[in-house]
Amino acid sequence: MNLFWTECVYFLCKNDGKEPLVVKRNDTTSAEWSESCRTENDALGAAVLPSKALYGIHTHRARNNFNLTERTLSPSLIHAILQVKKACAEANVETGDLSSTIGAAIISAADKALDVFEKKNESLPLNPDEQEIYEALQTHPLQGGAGTSVNMNVNEVLANLALARLNKNAGDYDSLHPVNHVNMSQSTNDVYPTALKIALIRKVRKLSDALAQLQSALQRLETEHANVIKLGRTQLMDAVPITFGQVFGAYARAISRDRWRIYKAEERLREINLGGTAVGTGLNASLDFIYLVTERLQRITGLGIARADLLVDATQNADVYVEVSGLLKALATNLMKIANDLRLMNAGPRGGFAEISLEAHQAGSSIMPGKVNPVLCEMVNQVCFRVFGADVAITAAAAGGQFELNPFLPLIGDELFTAFDLLEASVEKFTQGVIETLSVNRAHCQETVAKSTSLAAAFIDVLGYDEASAIAKRAHESGANIRNVLRNETLLSDEAIDERLTVQNLTHPKR
Amino acid sequence: MNLFWTECVYFLCKNDGKEPLVVKRNDTTSAEWSESCRTENDALGAAVLPSKALYGIHTHRARNNFNLTERTLSPSLIHAILQVKKACAEANVETGDLSSTIGAAIISAADKALDVFEKKNESLPLNPDEQEIYEALQTHPLQGGAGTSVNMNVNEVLANLALARLNKNAGDYDSLHPVNHVNMSQSTNDVYPTALKIALIRKVRKLSDALAQLQSALQRLETEHANVIKLGRTQLMDAVPITFGQVFGAYARAISRDRWRIYKAEERLREINLGGTAVGTGLNASLDFIYLVTERLQRITGLGIARADLLVDATQNADVYVEVSGLLKALATNLMKIANDLRLMNAGPRGGFAEISLEAHQAGSSIMPGKVNPVLCEMVNQVCFRVFGADVAITAAAAGGQFELNPFLPLIGDELFTAFDLLEASVEKFTQGVIETLSVNRAHCQETVAKSTSLAAAFIDVLGYDEASAIAKRAHESGANIRNVLRNETLLSDEAIDERLTVQNLTHPKR
Amino acid sequence: MNLFWTECVYFLCKNDGKEPLVVKRNDTTSAEWSESCRTENDALGAAVLPSKALYGIHTHRARNNFNLTERTLSPSLIHAILQVKKACAEANVETGDLSSTIGAAIISAADKALDVFEKKNESLPLNPDEQEIYEALQTHPLQGGAGTSVNMNVNEVLANLALARLNKNAGDYDSLHPVNHVNMSQSTNDVYPTALKIALIRKVRKLSDALAQLQSALQRLETEHANVIKLGRTQLMDAVPITFGQVFGAYARAISRDRWRIYKAEERLREINLGGTAVGTGLNASLDFIYLVTERLQRITGLGIARADLLVDATQNADVYVEVSGLLKALATNLMKIANDLRLMNAGPRGGFAEISLEAHQAGSSIMPGKVNPVLCEMVNQVCFRVFGADVAITAAAAGGQFELNPFLPLIGDELFTAFDLLEASVEKFTQGVIETLSVNRAHCQETVAKSTSLAAAFIDVLGYDEASAIAKRAHESGANIRNVLRNETLLSDEAIDERLTVQNLTHPKR
Amino acid sequence: MNLFWTECVYFLCKNDGKEPLVVKRNDTTSAEWSESCRTENDALGAAVLPSKALYGIHTHRARNNFNLTERTLSPSLIHAILQVKKACAEANVETGDLSSTIGAAIISAADKALDVFEKKNESLPLNPDEQEIYEALQTHPLQGGAGTSVNMNVNEVLANLALARLNKNAGDYDSLHPVNHVNMSQSTNDVYPTALKIALIRKVRKLSDALAQLQSALQRLETEHANVIKLGRTQLMDAVPITFGQVFGAYARAISRDRWRIYKAEERLREINLGGTAVGTGLNASLDFIYLVTERLQRITGLGIARADLLVDATQNADVYVEVSGLLKALATNLMKIANDLRLMNAGPRGGFAEISLEAHQAGSSIMPGKVNPVLCEMVNQVCFRVFGADVAITAAAAGGQFELNPFLPLIGDELFTAFDLLEASVEKFTQGVIETLSVNRAHCQETVAKSTSLAAAFIDVLGYDEASAIAKRAHESGANIRNVLRNETLLSDEAIDERLTVQNLTHPKR
Repeated sequence: MNLFWTECVYFLCKNDGKEPLVVKRNDTTSAEWSESCRTENDALGAAVLPSKALYGIHTHRARNNFNLTERTLSPSLIHAILQVKKACAEANVETGDLSSTIGAAIISAADKALDVFEKKNESLPLNPDEQEIYEALQTHPLQGGAGTSVNMNVNEVLANLALARLNKNAGDYDSLHPVNHVNMSQSTNDVYPTALKIALIRKVRKLSDALAQLQSALQRLETEHANVIKLGRTQLMDAVPITFGQVFGAYARAISRDRWRIYKAEERLREINLGGTAVGTGLNASLDFIYLVTERLQRITGLGIARADLLVDATQNADVYVEVSGLLKALATNLMKIANDLRLMNAGPRGGFAEISLEAHQAGSSIMPGKVNPVLCEMVNQVCFRVFGADVAITAAAAGGQFELNPFLPLIGDELFTAFDLLEASVEKFTQGVIETLSVNRAHCQETVAKSTSLAAAFIDVLGYDEASAIAKRAHESGANIRNVLRNETLLSDEAIDERLTVQNLTHPKR
Repeated sequence: MNLFWTECVYFLCKNDGKEPLVVKRNDTTSAEWSESCRTENDALGAAVLPSKALYGIHTHRARNNFNLTERTLSPSLIHAILQVKKACAEANVETGDLSSTIGAAIISAADKALDVFEKKNESLPLNPDEQEIYEALQTHPLQGGAGTSVNMNVNEVLANLALARLNKNAGDYDSLHPVNHVNMSQSTNDVYPTALKIALIRKVRKLSDALAQLQSALQRLETEHANVIKLGRTQLMDAVPITFGQVFGAYARAISRDRWRIYKAEERLREINLGGTAVGTGLNASLDFIYLVTERLQRITGLGIARADLLVDATQNADVYVEVSGLLKALATNLMKIANDLRLMNAGPRGGFAEISLEAHQAGSSIMPGKVNPVLCEMVNQVCFRVFGADVAITAAAAGGQFELNPFLPLIGDELFTAFDLLEASVEKFTQGVIETLSVNRAHCQETVAKSTSLAAAFIDVLGYDEASAIAKRAHESGANIRNVLRNETLLSDEAIDERLTVQNLTHPKR
Repeated sequence: MNLFWTECVYFLCKNDGKEPLVVKRNDTTSAEWSESCRTENDALGAAVLPSKALYGIHTHRARNNFNLTERTLSPSLIHAILQVKKACAEANVETGDLSSTIGAAIISAADKALDVFEKKNESLPLNPDEQEIYEALQTHPLQGGAGTSVNMNVNEVLANLALARLNKNAGDYDSLHPVNHVNMSQSTNDVYPTALKIALIRKVRKLSDALAQLQSALQRLETEHANVIKLGRTQLMDAVPITFGQVFGAYARAISRDRWRIYKAEERLREINLGGTAVGTGLNASLDFIYLVTERLQRITGLGIARADLLVDATQNADVYVEVSGLLKALATNLMKIANDLRLMNAGPRGGFAEISLEAHQAGSSIMPGKVNPVLCEMVNQVCFRVFGADVAITAAAAGGQFELNPFLPLIGDELFTAFDLLEASVEKFTQGVIETLSVNRAHCQETVAKSTSLAAAFIDVLGYDEASAIAKRAHESGANIRNVLRNETLLSDEAIDERLTVQNLTHPKR
Repeated sequence: MNLFWTECVYFLCKNDGKEPLVVKRNDTTSAEWSESCRTENDALGAAVLPSKALYGIHTHRARNNFNLTERTLSPSLIHAILQVKKACAEANVETGDLSSTIGAAIISAADKALDVFEKKNESLPLNPDEQEIYEALQTHPLQGGAGTSVNMNVNEVLANLALARLNKNAGDYDSLHPVNHVNMSQSTNDVYPTALKIALIRKVRKLSDALAQLQSALQRLETEHANVIKLGRTQLMDAVPITFGQVFGAYARAISRDRWRIYKAEERLREINLGGTAVGTGLNASLDFIYLVTERLQRITGLGIARADLLVDATQNADVYVEVSGLLKALATNLMKIANDLRLMNAGPRGGFAEISLEAHQAGSSIMPGKVNPVLCEMVNQVCFRVFGADVAITAAAAGGQFELNPFLPLIGDELFTAFDLLEASVEKFTQGVIETLSVNRAHCQETVAKSTSLAAAFIDVLGYDEASAIAKRAHESGANIRNVLRNETLLSDEAIDERLTVQNLTHPKR
């Protein structure tokens, strides 16, 4: 991470009335230094930055404060903040609070930065200028300050990009100020949650697409194997038969509920608090601005976002993220169940259920030749465990808000982004590498059904529970096939027995 | 717990071909014993029970297997199973599978038992016969077997109550059989989940009522204190002012979202799998029965329940409980936030925020005279922690289902019942004992606002961020009132300053 | 729960200068009432209680404040508080702060109450006086106030029991006061945590005994089946063979680690904060008292408890409970793994692994005759899920402490008691009902090993990984036995092949 | 991530008897291609790789299978696997199973790769060769297959590095084979857990160092502020006084317990299963090897690792990771408590407790001038939430093991690495940026104590609880200073009152 801010000598000095002490790494002369560096000030003191740095002192401090690991904030969040900044600039120009020259420069800067993040999102290569913008917009995810750092980071980078458009030097904030102009009518406390929701809605949609593919793949299996019988199992013990069509249909149905949930999650995320500023009361924003900016943001994002009824509420309460995380957790529960079932059905090849065969994706062992493991299922399991953990972290963080703000939104956002990204990517791989390529071991399943004593259940209405139990028991103890025991030990005709043991009758209600 | 089944000497014997060995606790003669006891058999062997016992061998075994603690299953679940049994008996009679005599006896028995549980629910006293029925219908909550034990328990008690109606002895199952007749066309695997959902819907409605009261109480505070100013705080640090009306309004709004969520939870719980029998395929149930029974159950319960599209899915997947638990957890998050805020605002009386005063409910300390603690808030906090834990247990259990059934529904149900009951009861107490009785320390709050340096934020548009920062800093360092610093150190007129510092202007957007 | 305090008419009145308003339930005359009732006062006002009630106004208020459900506090906690009270009375007499008459009365009262709880613990019947004492000592578990209510409850009951010993009336607190005398030199904030730790140490020991039984039972299986081969499985797929002895040995070893952990948990719980009073500074306690009371408590409890180095720390920090809960969770992880493995190995009887047979404890299905389920394993699973949830609740509560106290110790204690009780009881049942009674399906396991292709792994050193893989693959595809493929397709002698395929060589390192 | 394996055209083909289909990205000729590429085969088919690629087909497949996000495995794990490989090569040479030429090449290759990771660890620059090695050793963290992929990745890279030492081409596995030679006597299932524990022990030590610094810093505050009084608070309400020395002492003590725990964690992690191979039985390893390799690994790592008693147990059970995670969670609980207390004490500056002042690290608001937030505390809070989540994920994963292996060790390791890294880095920042730089607002704290009514507690022994309560109440209601009320309304002499109100007497037991 250090690579972002060490191209130049610099030093952070406290505002103690003394000159900033300059530490020069490469023995540069003072003259060289003054050309390559600039000094920025804040309430705490001054910092020396590379003279052309697109970021400013607030970014600089944030990077030193929060560089716990090399991970940086999700690009999707930066992208969304840039869209918010653009919408605000447009609205501020329209209300007359911002000059059209400055406004236009900010908007153009935002467009440029948005372009960079869109390229990145599509894995297109960046040119050096673009790469510089991309790197300037990097801060760490677990930042204290409720997102102030990333908001200030975007303010600073947009200010410096806009200054360039006005042919001014980076850092010439008298001409165009990160806070007074770029952040006009805003506060971190409305910008950050608004952008978080925009970014999450986009994640919702990507996940939703992945789930649609999964559901379709499951439904194809449902149709294809509608009449292939297998032994049903409850509590892992042999139960009455079922068809693979029913099995895959049940999975498809569970995933369809997840799609519905995810769709509902988008609804929950639509209410934004932009215009509420610091605590939701809208101090320093005008009513005109508040009305305008939501409309502009809708247009820019193309999303059906809406202003929350009570901005104070939307600023301080994080329950909606807990709800969304809970929905992801329900999805993870279903994925876990399906992955586990498939791993069990695939167990073998000779010492397990062996009802299906999953596609091989890699050799399974460095010591056992020929072994192949259900590695994509296991990957899905691990993603689900991770999502369970994320939910706990999000819940505790959301419950930890106090008064007018939840300072832990950065963690909440980070965990949600992680959960969405892992789920989406793993569902895609699961669909293609597991569901679409599995095969059913039809003959083995039929055999297992035929020898199961649980078929006795199909005769309760004629034999009674107690007699059917006795027959099942005798079949089990003698190792005999239950069909034979029924023929030998009951008065039922062969036809009556066979009629009850057809696939259709074993797996459907009586007509 | 033992008191339920030790009135009589008894012994459990394995089916080893020998006579049951009778252990007599009170030195009764064999003759005495044979009058007071009866023997029942199952696939494992025989058990000696009190001759008039309403429960049977399956209940007996369950009680010995699962008596981990003294807790027993939620009465709400037994009540719902009784309603399911009644609906099934009606449907079975109508399809002709069950004789009307036996059907009528079962229905009458179910009505009697339902009556007992309704009395209990309203805290009405039970007569000895009723008490006996109530005690006969007790099993432990963490039962293995996916609920088979409680299903069999209800089957047995209804059979014996119905036998009495037919002037037969308890245990005369040749006349009326717990499985063949009471459980006809059913399996634990459809009865239990169906009853669980019915019971949960009733819990949902009770909780919903409690939340409506809480929301109303908060809204009354919102109106009452609409213009009472207090200092806002973000990240616990002094921020711009806000009104108590806005504070309570934000809480009310959060709770209104919870009401909406809880309402949605009811929707999720409406889909039942009755008719699916063992694995959801409907084996041993007739199509006629399946159609009829849902309709009967709707009528009996008065709830808008509906048959799930795919009973196999509804039998094996537990994601809906995870979703509901997630919604409860979101509520717990909001309650925790509100309770914590109130505890903070109430902190003092002299060394804390002291913005509100909560009603005293008990002396606060055995050593500090006069101390009063926010005990009801702390109770709510603890309920919320418990709900967070329940959610983790439910999630892990739901993800642990395998193949055609989730064997852990008893735990899932138990944790949900606990969560609903605790939330409902504590929300009621919180509403009455905390929200409806709190008072606002208006004068102290006004003073705090007046001396806060954060008022500088209201002057950013005229002074700029940097100048406003400097003024805030000087006021902070000198201890001066910011209004005075503004008057002395800026060109703003007193009127302009005062205008910006009205309650209305400090807590609303510019017009 | 109400039954405990409604024998008499009563009314709670606020301290508003008016007479207490008496509500008479059974139309008693005022005269009757004044005989049957007494009035107690606290800082909030007055309460009318049954004149002979052993509890007082603080208990009365607590019961009205916290009666969320019918559950009451763990008797083990009350027992431990009684021991703390006795130790304090002894120490206070010895320092001379408490008169020996009053001290003796309190000590005698504590002995009486301790006797009641010990009888209860051993399931001995209580006489009416004892039952009254038992019921007087009941409050609810999720009490706000950090345990003040239960401390005051014990203070009041002991005071009234002691007053009887002095031939004084209940409620005559001028003669002997619940706070001034029974609670002398104490605060809830040192009494409650101290008693909690004492109670938990006793739970630790009971659980430890249960685990020792489980470990022994597993080791017996380890010895008994030392040479019985079965197929090993990694990631559910056929792997190289293993013996049942090794399997059960691995379980035994895991449980032995849990015993070690549980033993360590006792060490952690030994440090108590008695003498710290309100915030750990020891205000109102004398140094003499502090030294004496720990020694007395050691003697009374027979436990190796010790005063914490810094009582302020021990009063406010709850990390030790998180640590203990974490150890229980590790145990639950092992139990879950073992229970799940056994359920898998028992799966069948015809369509699963079928490697072992678990003892039957009840019929498994109301619809599938002859089905038997692993119900005790499923019970263990559910206990483990519950323990996972408890850990989350405990962690969140422990992290929620503020300043000099954690107000959520009641929840923490309640969840720990629940976890210990459930684990101990279920481990006992698991040991007796599952481990000690399972049988191994030796022949089936041998067959499965013989036909497994994973035996190819035993030939890597002579064939190389690639050739061994090819042989495994051919065996799998042709369905052939790998021994035959090796004989036909390699140059290895039959003896060399057989030598490598002995049980000893397949399941041990090369010598 | 793609950049690691796309320098060359390649295609993955299934083993279907056809030629590998080559996809050429840059329109290279077939000749060009055959020079730049090589083909490797496995049981699934063939893959075309860059001819000089240090990694092989197994790595290639793993990267395509598990590339969910851009994160890659912790370098600390790769480093530890390299050490395991080196130890195994040494032991295999010594037992004579591996030729000394091949062994020496592997050892030299391992040394080279270790050198790269050590440089990286110290943030030293890598030359291009080193960078290539570094990049070749990258796979994704949430890999299915229980770590087979990373084990095979290291096997392949070491094989190719060793081949270079023998002047052979990359991919010439007939000369030196990744599995037959590099992986000799090993399995993923013993290599991976062994390396995981080695890497974790190193993390333990780093965290332990960070905690030692934190404890020292707290102890310095304890000494420095030993006699500075402040109001104690229980349940957030004013309680009896305490000194800052006691406050910081309590924190130091809690952290010292965490150091002890972390130290214990190292003990738990010392038992390794190397030599157990696939399922812990040691198949394909010799007894000589097993004895030797542990000793070699001790020497190479410098750690006191030891062979587990029962390798089967150590291979399949993951409870030790749950235990370690539980200990980290206890630490997180303490850090959360301390960070929250500091945030509360710092709340203000004018509308909160304002008892301490935390150092400013950045401007706190984009809208509120002069606001400074406790951002490093908030960062610590978020790290703790994350650790709580990790614990849930780890527990669920550990409980999900089946039979002879837990396939979810990659997730468990990843979450533990994340938890350790975040805790260590944030504790360092917290120590330096919060603890070492905070200042105490002595005068304000003294004032608050003086006006608190809770001082009445110091007079219980002379006034009795009831009278002391009344005095506290009157002082509270009148707003008077309690010292004055005591002087005016009791018979206590001024000297007696003052004596009890000294700092020493208010914050210590009576002598």
